[in-house]
Amino acid sequence: MTASTTGRLGVEAFQALFDRCSNWGRWGPDDQRGALNLITPEKRVQAAALVKEGATVSVAHPVNTVGDAENTSPAVHLMVRAGDVFDGVTVTSIADHLAVSPHGQAHSHLDALCHFAWQGNMYNGHPVTEVKSNGARANAITIGQDGIVSRGVLLDVPRHKGVEYLEPSQSITVEDLEATEQAQGVKVESGDILLVRTGRHARRKAQGPWDSRSTLAGLHHDVGPWLKDRDVALLGSDGVSDYREHPFDCCTHPIHVLSLVAMGMQLLDNQNLDDLAAACQARSRWAFMLVVAPLKLVGGTASMTNPIAIF
Amino acid sequence: MTASTTGRLGVEAFQALFDRCSNWGRWGPDDQRGALNLITPEKRVQAAALVKEGATVSVAHPVNTVGDAENTSPAVHLMVRAGDVFDGVTVTSIADHLAVSPHGQAHSHLDALCHFAWQGNMYNGHPVTEVKSNGARANAITIGQDGIVSRGVLLDVPRHKGVEYLEPSQSITVEDLEATEQAQGVKVESGDILLVRTGRHARRKAQGPWDSRSTLAGLHHDVGPWLKDRDVALLGSDGVSDYREHPFDCCTHPIHVLSLVAMGMQLLDNQNLDDLAAACQARSRWAFMLVVAPLKLVGGTASMTNPIAIF
Amino acid sequence: MTASTTGRLGVEAFQALFDRCSNWGRWGPDDQRGALNLITPEKRVQAAALVKEGATVSVAHPVNTVGDAENTSPAVHLMVRAGDVFDGVTVTSIADHLAVSPHGQAHSHLDALCHFAWQGNMYNGHPVTEVKSNGARANAITIGQDGIVSRGVLLDVPRHKGVEYLEPSQSITVEDLEATEQAQGVKVESGDILLVRTGRHARRKAQGPWDSRSTLAGLHHDVGPWLKDRDVALLGSDGVSDYREHPFDCCTHPIHVLSLVAMGMQLLDNQNLDDLAAACQARSRWAFMLVVAPLKLVGGTASMTNPIAIF
Amino acid sequence: MTASTTGRLGVEAFQALFDRCSNWGRWGPDDQRGALNLITPEKRVQAAALVKEGATVSVAHPVNTVGDAENTSPAVHLMVRAGDVFDGVTVTSIADHLAVSPHGQAHSHLDALCHFAWQGNMYNGHPVTEVKSNGARANAITIGQDGIVSRGVLLDVPRHKGVEYLEPSQSITVEDLEATEQAQGVKVESGDILLVRTGRHARRKAQGPWDSRSTLAGLHHDVGPWLKDRDVALLGSDGVSDYREHPFDCCTHPIHVLSLVAMGMQLLDNQNLDDLAAACQARSRWAFMLVVAPLKLVGGTASMTNPIAIF
Repeated sequence: MTASTTGRLGVEAFQALFDRCSNWGRWGPDDQRGALNLITPEKRVQAAALVKEGATVSVAHPVNTVGDAENTSPAVHLMVRAGDVFDGVTVTSIADHLAVSPHGQAHSHLDALCHFAWQGNMYNGHPVTEVKSNGARANAITIGQDGIVSRGVLLDVPRHKGVEYLEPSQSITVEDLEATEQAQGVKVESGDILLVRTGRHARRKAQGPWDSRSTLAGLHHDVGPWLKDRDVALLGSDGVSDYREHPFDCCTHPIHVLSLVAMGMQLLDNQNLDDLAAACQARSRWAFMLVVAPLKLVGGTASMTNPIAIF
Repeated sequence: MTASTTGRLGVEAFQALFDRCSNWGRWGPDDQRGALNLITPEKRVQAAALVKEGATVSVAHPVNTVGDAENTSPAVHLMVRAGDVFDGVTVTSIADHLAVSPHGQAHSHLDALCHFAWQGNMYNGHPVTEVKSNGARANAITIGQDGIVSRGVLLDVPRHKGVEYLEPSQSITVEDLEATEQAQGVKVESGDILLVRTGRHARRKAQGPWDSRSTLAGLHHDVGPWLKDRDVALLGSDGVSDYREHPFDCCTHPIHVLSLVAMGMQLLDNQNLDDLAAACQARSRWAFMLVVAPLKLVGGTASMTNPIAIF
Repeated sequence: MTASTTGRLGVEAFQALFDRCSNWGRWGPDDQRGALNLITPEKRVQAAALVKEGATVSVAHPVNTVGDAENTSPAVHLMVRAGDVFDGVTVTSIADHLAVSPHGQAHSHLDALCHFAWQGNMYNGHPVTEVKSNGARANAITIGQDGIVSRGVLLDVPRHKGVEYLEPSQSITVEDLEATEQAQGVKVESGDILLVRTGRHARRKAQGPWDSRSTLAGLHHDVGPWLKDRDVALLGSDGVSDYREHPFDCCTHPIHVLSLVAMGMQLLDNQNLDDLAAACQARSRWAFMLVVAPLKLVGGTASMTNPIAIF
Repeated sequence: MTASTTGRLGVEAFQALFDRCSNWGRWGPDDQRGALNLITPEKRVQAAALVKEGATVSVAHPVNTVGDAENTSPAVHLMVRAGDVFDGVTVTSIADHLAVSPHGQAHSHLDALCHFAWQGNMYNGHPVTEVKSNGARANAITIGQDGIVSRGVLLDVPRHKGVEYLEPSQSITVEDLEATEQAQGVKVESGDILLVRTGRHARRKAQGPWDSRSTLAGLHHDVGPWLKDRDVALLGSDGVSDYREHPFDCCTHPIHVLSLVAMGMQLLDNQNLDDLAAACQARSRWAFMLVVAPLKLVGGTASMTNPIAIF
C-alpha cells in the first residue's frame, strides 16, 4: 500500500455518500429490480427510434480463455467432439463446452445486484446471507431476464481530454463527465444505460498489461450522487467503473457499493468500448439503442453478456 | 425402431433436397456468414420500427441445471463464494460459476454453422475437419458476434390447429406453415427470424417428459426448400426444428443439415415460445423486433443465448 | 412412498442409535480424523505383510461421463487439444480436462466427514455451518491426504447367500455380516477398511438400471453399533452403504449419519467390488492391503479415488 | 531467447537419442503399457517388504485453485451446497465440485503416454491422431488403472550438492544422479519409480515464483539413455523432469519425449518432494513402497494423483 494515510476517509463519510445515493424503498419495500425500474416502455420506444442506419456493434470482448496475471480465472472452452471424429453415421454433429466464472478483471459481464453488500445488506435491505451456497434468493441476475433495452450513451472521456487513454491512477469526476457530455452534445437522462470509456484496452495495447486489480482508472466516488441524480439505469465501463486507489478503507469498491447496493443499479464490467467509440465517432452520435440479454440464470450473481449497440 | 422400411429415403433423395436448398457460393466462395447476409441494414431498421409499446419478452428457458433423462448434460451453476463468507473486509463480493455444454435437448441455445456437416463438409464447402479439438477454424459462432437483429415472426402452429400442442409424432408441412401465416395475417419474408412453435413444453407440462431424442414434433423435411425460397435468416423452435421419426437413414437431422449446411442458416433450439406466443396473441401481432446476442466465443460451435423480442 | 407408517421410527430412536455409535471426544475435543485414528502404524505394517503375490486390483469404476436417470451429474471429460492439432512445433503435447461433482449415485468416491451432519453438527460437534461456500473449515477430505493404508476386508454377502445379487429392497444385518465372516474365514478387526458387496452392478447388468436413489440394498441401521464395536476405520460398498427404504423420517441416510457424523468414519460409495470379489474368490482370501489416496483438496467434501487392493 | 545458437542440436541428434532409448516393440507390437511392464509381481512384493514402520507420506501438492503467472489454468473447486443451506430435512448433505486441466506447471499429476508424440507418433508407433477430440484411443492413462505399485527411490540432488535448491538454469547429469545414489547408499533398479528432487519449491519459498515455463531445473537430455539402461518404470520430479533451456529446436521437452514416447515411461510432474525428502533424511532411507492410483479415466491423457510413499 503506497497511499498515504493523509486524506483517508472513514465509515461515516462513506455512509453519508451511501445514504445520498440510496434508492432503498423507492420502488416499494420488496423491490429487487432497482434502477431497471427507470427503463419505462416509453424509454424503450425512444431507444428503438435511435435505430436509423441498422448498424450493430458488440460492446463485449471475446470470451477470454488465456490465463495470465490479469486473467486469473480464465474461461474454459473445450470441444465435446470435433471434426476429427465426425463420420456422419455414429457421430453426426460437433459440440463444445464452456465454463466460466464471469466476475473478474478479464471477462465482459453484467453484475447482479447481489454481487456486493454494505454492512451486511444488499440493495433494498435484503441480507447478504440471502445469497446461499446454492444460489441467490434475492437480487439475482434474473431481474433482467426479459432483456435490458434502453438508450445507451457513451461518454468517451480520453477522447474529450485529447489523450489515447487515461492513466490507471486517474479518476473521472463529475466535471469530466459533464464536459464530455457537452463536447459530445449528449446528456445522460433518466433510464439511460451509461457507458464510460477510460481507454483501458488502448493502454494495454500500447503499454502491455498491468495489475489492474491494484490500479485502474474509473469514476471518482463523488460521481455516485451524480449517477443517482441523473437516474442512470445501468452503468458500464471498459474498466470496472471503480477507480483505484481510492481513499476508503471500509470498502474495496466504492462505486460498486454505491451502484449495486445503494442505487440498485447493475454494472457492466470490462466491456469493449473501443469499437463502440469508433462507431460513435464516425457518426458523431453518442446515443444508440442498446440491448443487454443476460442469461436466465436463476440465483445467478452475474452473466456473461454481449451487449449490442444498434445505430 | 418402429418406422417401417416402406417409405425410407436414400442418399440420392437427400442430396437432391440438399442441392435444392443450397446457398453455397451465393455470397462468395469464402463466405461464412451464410443466411445472416440476408439481414440487411434496412431489415434492422424495419425491425426497430416494430417497437411500438416498449414491451420485451425473453425467448429462452432458464438455464437448466437439473439432470434427468432428457437433460443428460445439465448445466453446472455454483457459487465461488456466497453470503455466508461475506464480511465486508476480506470478502467483499459474491461470485458464481457456470459450466454448460449448450447443445442438447434441454438448453436454449444458438447453433453455429459448424455444428453439422454433410458428406464431410460444412456450409460453403469448408471441411468438417476445420473444426479442431481446440476450436472451429471455420463457420464458428462468431459470425453473429455483433448481434443478430431482425424482424422476428412467430408461427404458432398448434394454436392455428386448435390444439394445445402437437404430438411428438407430428411433422409440420409447408401447408401448415402457410395456413398459419394466413390465419395470423403475417408473411415470412427475406431476412426474417422465423420461430415455429410446436407446443413442446405445454405437452411436457400436461403429460410429463418423454424421450425427446426419439420422437419430437418439428418441420417436415420438405419445408427445407420453402425456408430457402423465403430466404429465412435464422430459424428457431421450441423443439429442435427437426422432426422424429423421419425417413432418412443417411442423416440424423434433415432440417439441421439443410439449414446449417446447405443454406448456411443458424438454428435456435429448445426455445421458450410459450411466453412469446401469449404476448403475440394478446396483441394479435406476430412480428416483432428480435435481438439475439451470442457470446463472442472464438471457435465456438454454439452459444447459450437469451433472445429478446421487443414489441 | 410405499412404506407403511407402521414401524416408522422417530428422532429419539435415531438419537439413541447415534449416541450408541458416537466417537465424539474419543480422540480429543478438537479431533477431525475420527476413525482414521484407528489405523495405527502397526496396522499399516500388518497390511503390507498381506502382499504375498504382488497382484493389484482397482476397487473403482471408470469415471462415468454418460448422463442417465441414475447419473444425473455426469463427469465432463474433454480434450484441451487432441492429436488433430499436434504438429510437433507449435502444438507439441496433448491435454485434457475433467470436471466432476463426486457425490452421487454413479461416481466411485470417498466421502469426507463434512458430507453429512446431524442436528446441525458434524463429527465431534463441529457445526455444519463450518462448511462454507468457499470450502469446509472442519472435517474436510484432507484428513486422509497422506493416504489411507490399512488391511482391507471384503464381505461378499450375495456370494455367501448363494445369489448373484441382493434385491434393492434387502438390507444386510449383523447376522448376515457375521455369517459371511465365518463362511469366508475372516474377521473384521480394529482399523480395518471394510468393503461390503451387495452385487448392485451384477444386478444392473442382469436387469438394467433402476432408480437407485429410491431403493438400494445396504446395511441395516442396526449394523451401526456393530461397526462401532468392531472399530472399522473406513467403510465402503458397491452401493452407498445405506439401504432404502428404511424406517426413519428424521434422517435420509442412517448409515451415512452414524458413520460420518457419529463415528467419524469416512465412506467409499459406489465402488466396483466385482473385480475384487473375483480376485478374492480366486485366492480364497478376503483380506488384502488397501491403499486409498484422496486428492489433497483443501476444504473438500469428497474425492474421486481409485482405491487399490494389493494381494 | 537468450540461448546462443552455438551448441544447438538438430533433428538427427535427437533422433539418435530417441532410438537409443526406444522400447518400441520390446513388449510386442501392440503394447501400450510400456515401462509399467517392468513392474513385476515380485517387484511389488519387494516394495511391500519396505514397509517397516507403517508411516505414510503424500508426494503431491494440494490441488491449486489460485491463478497466477505460473498457474494459468487453476483448478476450480466449488461447493454444490454448503452448510448454510443444510436443514436436515430438504438438504441433508453437503457436496462439492472439482474441475481441473491436470497438465501444467502447477498441478501434481501423472502424464499418460499419449501426452506427447515424436514425428507424429506416440509410444510404440501409435499415431498421435489416435488421440481423438473425444478421448485417446491408444496410450491412455488407464494403463495404470489397477494401480502403479513399486519400489520408489528418491534422489535428492540439491541435498547431495549441499545446496537448498538447484538454480533454474541447472541441469542434472548422469554423474549427478550416480553421485547422489552413492551418497545416499541406494541404487536405481529395474522397475523402480524414480523421483528426482530439484528443490523447486524450496526455491519458490525463498525467492518467489518465476516463469517456470521458460527456465526450470531438470534432467539433462543425456540422462535419457541412463533411464533406459536402468529400466526405470516411472519417473517423477518436483519440476517436470525436463530442463530449460536445452539445445533442441526440434522438440520442446526432450525428457518428456524420450520418456513418454521412446521408452513408454509415464511421468509424475510437479510433485511435492520436500516432505518426502524430509522423511527420507530422517530415516537415512531413500527407498520405500510407492502407490500411485490414477483415476480410471477412459481415454484420459493425465490424472491428478496423490502418490503415497509408505515406509
